[in-house]
Amino acid sequence: MALSDVVAGPRNEEGIGSAIGILKQRFGERFSTGTALREQHAHTTTYIPSQIPDAVVFPESADEVLEIVQVCAAHKVPMIAFGTGTSLEGHVNAPNGGISIDTSRMNRILKVNAEDLDCVVEPGVTREDLNKYLRDTGLFFPIDPGANASIGGMTATRASGTNAVRYGTMKDNVLSLTAVMADGRQINTGTRARKSSTGYDLTRLFVGSEGTLGILTSITLKLYGIPSCIAAGVCPFPSVDAAVNAVIMTIQMGIPVARIELLDALAMKATNQYSGLNYPEGPALFVEFHGTDDYAAEQAGLFGEIAGELGGGDFIWATEQEERNKLWKARHDAYWAGFTLRPGASCFATDVCVPISRLAECIHETQEDIAEHGFLAPIVGHVGDGNFHVTMLFDESSKEEIEQAEAFTKRLSSRALAMEGTCSGEHGIGQGKQTALQEEYGCEIDLMRSIKHAFDPDNIMNPGKIFSMT
Amino acid sequence: MALSDVVAGPRNEEGIGSAIGILKQRFGERFSTGTALREQHAHTTTYIPSQIPDAVVFPESADEVLEIVQVCAAHKVPMIAFGTGTSLEGHVNAPNGGISIDTSRMNRILKVNAEDLDCVVEPGVTREDLNKYLRDTGLFFPIDPGANASIGGMTATRASGTNAVRYGTMKDNVLSLTAVMADGRQINTGTRARKSSTGYDLTRLFVGSEGTLGILTSITLKLYGIPSCIAAGVCPFPSVDAAVNAVIMTIQMGIPVARIELLDALAMKATNQYSGLNYPEGPALFVEFHGTDDYAAEQAGLFGEIAGELGGGDFIWATEQEERNKLWKARHDAYWAGFTLRPGASCFATDVCVPISRLAECIHETQEDIAEHGFLAPIVGHVGDGNFHVTMLFDESSKEEIEQAEAFTKRLSSRALAMEGTCSGEHGIGQGKQTALQEEYGCEIDLMRSIKHAFDPDNIMNPGKIFSMT
Repeated sequence: MALSDVVAGPRNEEGIGSAIGILKQRFGERFSTGTALREQHAHTTTYIPSQIPDAVVFPESADEVLEIVQVCAAHKVPMIAFGTGTSLEGHVNAPNGGISIDTSRMNRILKVNAEDLDCVVEPGVTREDLNKYLRDTGLFFPIDPGANASIGGMTATRASGTNAVRYGTMKDNVLSLTAVMADGRQINTGTRARKSSTGYDLTRLFVGSEGTLGILTSITLKLYGIPSCIAAGVCPFPSVDAAVNAVIMTIQMGIPVARIELLDALAMKATNQYSGLNYPEGPALFVEFHGTDDYAAEQAGLFGEIAGELGGGDFIWATEQEERNKLWKARHDAYWAGFTLRPGASCFATDVCVPISRLAECIHETQEDIAEHGFLAPIVGHVGDGNFHVTMLFDESSKEEIEQAEAFTKRLSSRALAMEGTCSGEHGIGQGKQTALQEEYGCEIDLMRSIKHAFDPDNIMNPGKIFSMT
Repeated sequence: MALSDVVAGPRNEEGIGSAIGILKQRFGERFSTGTALREQHAHTTTYIPSQIPDAVVFPESADEVLEIVQVCAAHKVPMIAFGTGTSLEGHVNAPNGGISIDTSRMNRILKVNAEDLDCVVEPGVTREDLNKYLRDTGLFFPIDPGANASIGGMTATRASGTNAVRYGTMKDNVLSLTAVMADGRQINTGTRARKSSTGYDLTRLFVGSEGTLGILTSITLKLYGIPSCIAAGVCPFPSVDAAVNAVIMTIQMGIPVARIELLDALAMKATNQYSGLNYPEGPALFVEFHGTDDYAAEQAGLFGEIAGELGGGDFIWATEQEERNKLWKARHDAYWAGFTLRPGASCFATDVCVPISRLAECIHETQEDIAEHGFLAPIVGHVGDGNFHVTMLFDESSKEEIEQAEAFTKRLSSRALAMEGTCSGEHGIGQGKQTALQEEYGCEIDLMRSIKHAFDPDNIMNPGKIFSMT
């Protein structure tokens, strides 16, 4: 789908009017049709134009979600679950109008089972709030997309982030979840057992379903002990190729690196500017090792040997928590840092993921593409998984620049697919990548549609996302 | 479902006759209606009575699977995929008759991408054959259910085994798969990328679907480097409680043990008898640590401290490959060893999985249940995941013993569910655990049914498994 194709769908005006009347009466000041609030609920971290919902409601419990779903379902009104609005592919837009269900008041941590290394949270809990809450238990939740996203949103988009190379993605870290279905049924996809062979894996079906199958009301997550030693560092490399080859060797040797992140020269420059740092302005890897003192040191030593062989420069180590936090905040802010390169520009953020043996080639060709077209587009990436991001700065008032950005993204997706990769490692499809999804899959999309139709025959759960139902 | 409820369903005699005629002509000597062969294809490692298919066919390629599916679909004839026949809950029975599709001649390893730590295999490849093939590459595939099962069967049942505590289950180690659907569509659920956020997770939907959604034709698996040091050992404990508490502390401390297996006193006795060993005949943990020399030693040391605190006795270590193989063969043969306790008896093997904090309690209550009823029922388990097995020896000619075994299994499932666990950690549902599935889930089974109906409206893919469609 091109940007210009993200158009409004059919609106059920009568149903929307009825639902608004009922929900307004029921939820009072926790329900709003105010323009500013509605605009805020469609304006996300994305290049895709906003399509605002007709109203926003703030439930405080699963029972209230159920009430909202029942009203919307009775009147066939679209529902769009909203976490923190940090998704990147237009996931919270309301192309057919409808009600934005803002989960920010469902922000309770319902239970921490420290002895079982799991917890149960409401969908509006953010990853940073969860980790603040957990700190005294000695446990942490590792999944960290760039933004301080909500656990509900992270579940819905199958988020990952810098720790995925060691700890997996949301797919690997959601034990089970509860949701309200379009027909008002409340489901619980599993137990707290660490593994199960009982029937179809509904948990994994909901993880990554982008709100199109039901509204999440709680999520049970795996937790991990905070390692006794965490050693982080930045290592400059003479070229992106050299840095990527160091990553490939690290993974192939089985070094269980916790984080291994690439920033190209342009991304380092932007990061220095934005975060007030003075790292060398060439390609670099940000790495982190977890373990006992001895084990973290052993991993760091092995990685150091690899980096040395490939021309890596002196490490800048950060072992104290404050220094580490500063380092990783700079990495997480890379998206925002990009804007310093072209003040006033918009950002077209995209990601792909390829088998690691093809990573250097894929990044290399992408950099050539960027250079050839004169784009301003830093590259950062979770390269241990073969996943990287391009954040292209463009002028959203320029039709030509939009078309160029779209064409670039299309070439990038096709390049990744040709290398046996995927058109999105972690951002998801939303509205922005539906054409790429069609290039990645064929009749499999019909299977996905048939599940959607079976679960949501009136297409009221976040319609128009992942694929069209028409 | 009680044993006595595993009854034959409706048979489409005319369709079966037509399909047999066509397939016989097409596949010649690779198609058989011989009684002995048909019986072999329903007689599996299970206590559930056999329900034999009408014919067996041996395809040698995905294209031949497609041909078979097209013939069966055209005549609405059930198809039952068959790997090695080592499933435990009646998965390959043919309650409505139909064609057993034996995948043993689809046993090619299609590709090993050593640099990406993955491989593509046909469904009939067994886990031992795969690891023999991989040995020279320095890589291995860790998932090891007791039997030398086929990768197709392991995928279909979401198998795990002794390494799951460190390496995950089939859910975590299948990157993607190809399958033929009931309508003849051939699908490919994903790419070789390590992670993806592109649409519904069809890969995980097929993993554990027990052949009810389509016939697998290839599976792409994650591989791992063979650790430079592997240290295995057996540690006796004064009681099951002490052993289980050692497991709990090990997991909670985050020691990345590769294997941690419990055998109770009865299982140790049987193992000694069957495998010609002379381990102390009390409860024991079989453990294994993977890593560099230093790291494996560090893990073993930390575990040794925990074991010592809980009264664990002297370790019997096995670091050489031959010794380790002997140790783990004994553990894998525990199922067969059980039969030495009561020659001529049948074995009722069942498994449950609970949060690890409830594991000691669950095993303790189960042992009391066994003692109270005077059963002969050794316990073994992948206790690092909270997963354990009871293998009850019973006389299959005794109606009373069958009823007692069924009642015991029902109590065990209910006990696990009451402790926030699941009625099967790895064996699956098949025919044997459908009542337990209904106790574990409610309307979620209707969602599963709706997926099955969407993918296989005529209910010809392994009908009667997981849940009934009537």
